Amino acid sequence: MNKSFAGEFELIDFIKNKFNSLIAKDSTGIGDDCAIIPLDSKKSLVVTTDMLVEEVHFLRDKIAPFILGKKSLAVNLSDIASMGAAPVSSFLSFSLPDDVNDEWRRQFIEGYYELSEKFSVPLLGGDTTRSLDKITVSVTALGTADNENLKRRNGAGQGDLICVNGYLGDSAAGFKLIQRERWSDNPMEEYLINAHNDPDPLVNEGLWLGKNKYVTSMMDISDGIGSDIRHILNASDVGAIIDLERLPLSSALTKISGKYGWDKYNLAVNGGEDYKLLFTVLKEDFQDLNKEYLQIFKREITVIGSIAQKDNGLMWKLYGDCVPDYFMGYRHF
Amino acid sequence: MNKSFAGEFELIDFIKNKFNSLIAKDSTGIGDDCAIIPLDSKKSLVVTTDMLVEEVHFLRDKIAPFILGKKSLAVNLSDIASMGAAPVSSFLSFSLPDDVNDEWRRQFIEGYYELSEKFSVPLLGGDTTRSLDKITVSVTALGTADNENLKRRNGAGQGDLICVNGYLGDSAAGFKLIQRERWSDNPMEEYLINAHNDPDPLVNEGLWLGKNKYVTSMMDISDGIGSDIRHILNASDVGAIIDLERLPLSSALTKISGKYGWDKYNLAVNGGEDYKLLFTVLKEDFQDLNKEYLQIFKREITVIGSIAQKDNGLMWKLYGDCVPDYFMGYRHF
Repeated sequence: MNKSFAGEFELIDFIKNKFNSLIAKDSTGIGDDCAIIPLDSKKSLVVTTDMLVEEVHFLRDKIAPFILGKKSLAVNLSDIASMGAAPVSSFLSFSLPDDVNDEWRRQFIEGYYELSEKFSVPLLGGDTTRSLDKITVSVTALGTADNENLKRRNGAGQGDLICVNGYLGDSAAGFKLIQRERWSDNPMEEYLINAHNDPDPLVNEGLWLGKNKYVTSMMDISDGIGSDIRHILNASDVGAIIDLERLPLSSALTKISGKYGWDKYNLAVNGGEDYKLLFTVLKEDFQDLNKEYLQIFKREITVIGSIAQKDNGLMWKLYGDCVPDYFMGYRHF
Repeated sequence: MNKSFAGEFELIDFIKNKFNSLIAKDSTGIGDDCAIIPLDSKKSLVVTTDMLVEEVHFLRDKIAPFILGKKSLAVNLSDIASMGAAPVSSFLSFSLPDDVNDEWRRQFIEGYYELSEKFSVPLLGGDTTRSLDKITVSVTALGTADNENLKRRNGAGQGDLICVNGYLGDSAAGFKLIQRERWSDNPMEEYLINAHNDPDPLVNEGLWLGKNKYVTSMMDISDGIGSDIRHILNASDVGAIIDLERLPLSSALTKISGKYGWDKYNLAVNGGEDYKLLFTVLKEDFQDLNKEYLQIFKREITVIGSIAQKDNGLMWKLYGDCVPDYFMGYRHF
């Protein structure tokens, strides 16, 4: 065995194959948003973990410690939500260099606390340590769900509608603005930067969708739908057609993309860190689902395409015309 | 509120107080080796997480990736064992700079796998990401235990014997050898370096001691007994007398300490990363416990002192004479 890891996914595959034999039949390991560990015949524990690295996932002088604290937990709660599970506890480890002062540490914890309190998720442990020069944050979150409500990636069937429950691409546009040396105090630009730095994990939405039997698969959008939808297609052994013009785009994304000459669809498809939910719904039941969702969450679910047979592969369309190879992948800094 | 965090423990106290109100009454959060989350009336989940940072916890050119992979899991399994729990799964996150090649990554995973396989602990998830220049590894481990077998830090009572189940100070001596520019190929030095780099988590020993009702408190030795015993004393609201001459020291530690003029007791008390178990036992039942332990694990438990009343504080003695303020604390690189 002498192959080279071309990227993160190959390394993950190597790990997955290596450890496969150790995993009990009723557990689910690497390959979904969370691992699933059965607790009894009715309930399962779900577990996820995410690492944020300075200068890869964030720039210290471009994000307030309070917001970074929130985001560290948010990205994990989003994973728990995407399984249809309720978060029950979190664990926080971080390594901080000596030039991170007490006020920074306190603000980081205050931000982490704000989101913990919002969703009543206790912090039950962790590890604090020194680092030489960069900040690294690692959070593990635990959730529970009734087995019948657990949503995985492998349930999408031909004809199901592909849905998202929030704007796509805002975070990626905010990320582009952060990368510029300076940005204007245009409120739309602030909104986009905020979408990147301070994502709202859709905890209640995920729980609600989990309980809905018309939802056939679900995950959260962390790498951009262009990459993420493939996980559902692979796990469910199906293809898909996605209509770019149906992607829900904020007016801020449209306007600021116009201003700087960015391709808004590219940002919405290939930009990462949206932390909205991507899910499939039985076609005949969508209207009922959407109506109820609108009443509870005060916004509509957006249909962006439909599940096709496997041979079809993943097809991107713009006003009916095929747009080949639209997916180009997402990279952090 | 404007105090400065003098160290890791103060920051942990700030976090602990902040989140206290969110913790359900039947859960145990920060303050033991693991968090304890009740699963039902009989069983609990225990969770621990540890972060290893390059140039703080290890030097890349002084530890083989295979051994580092093992150690990343070992320190977490040791925490699980110290609760009297059985490890059931682990989660591995790491950030690696671009100059860490595929062979390093593979070897790291192979080492992590070796220990996973030894104790049948599946790796169920994690996160792999890039970093700018340093390696950071964060592992979370989950275990389960019957509630009646869970060992905490708060059960030590006056008269109980203070015990350890392995040599102390070897790891600290190995660490001192690693810090030297060169070390000899003396097998004793190799043994000490190995004790530091490749600690054996005492998983079966912890499980066995957990099931023994004569064991009144337990934790693993990660910061050195001088620091760690204080956690048991504080949690149990008691004092202690420890006799330095009773500390179990390997002949390698004694000989190499003599060679380089190191204080062997200082290494055994203040050196960290022993990953042996520190526990208290009802005095009248110790002989029976030790006899049975010897039969199963082929080595004896060592009594190093006894629990005293709280007013006594923590007293160090050497051949009957008090040695004041022996504890000086442990620092990584």
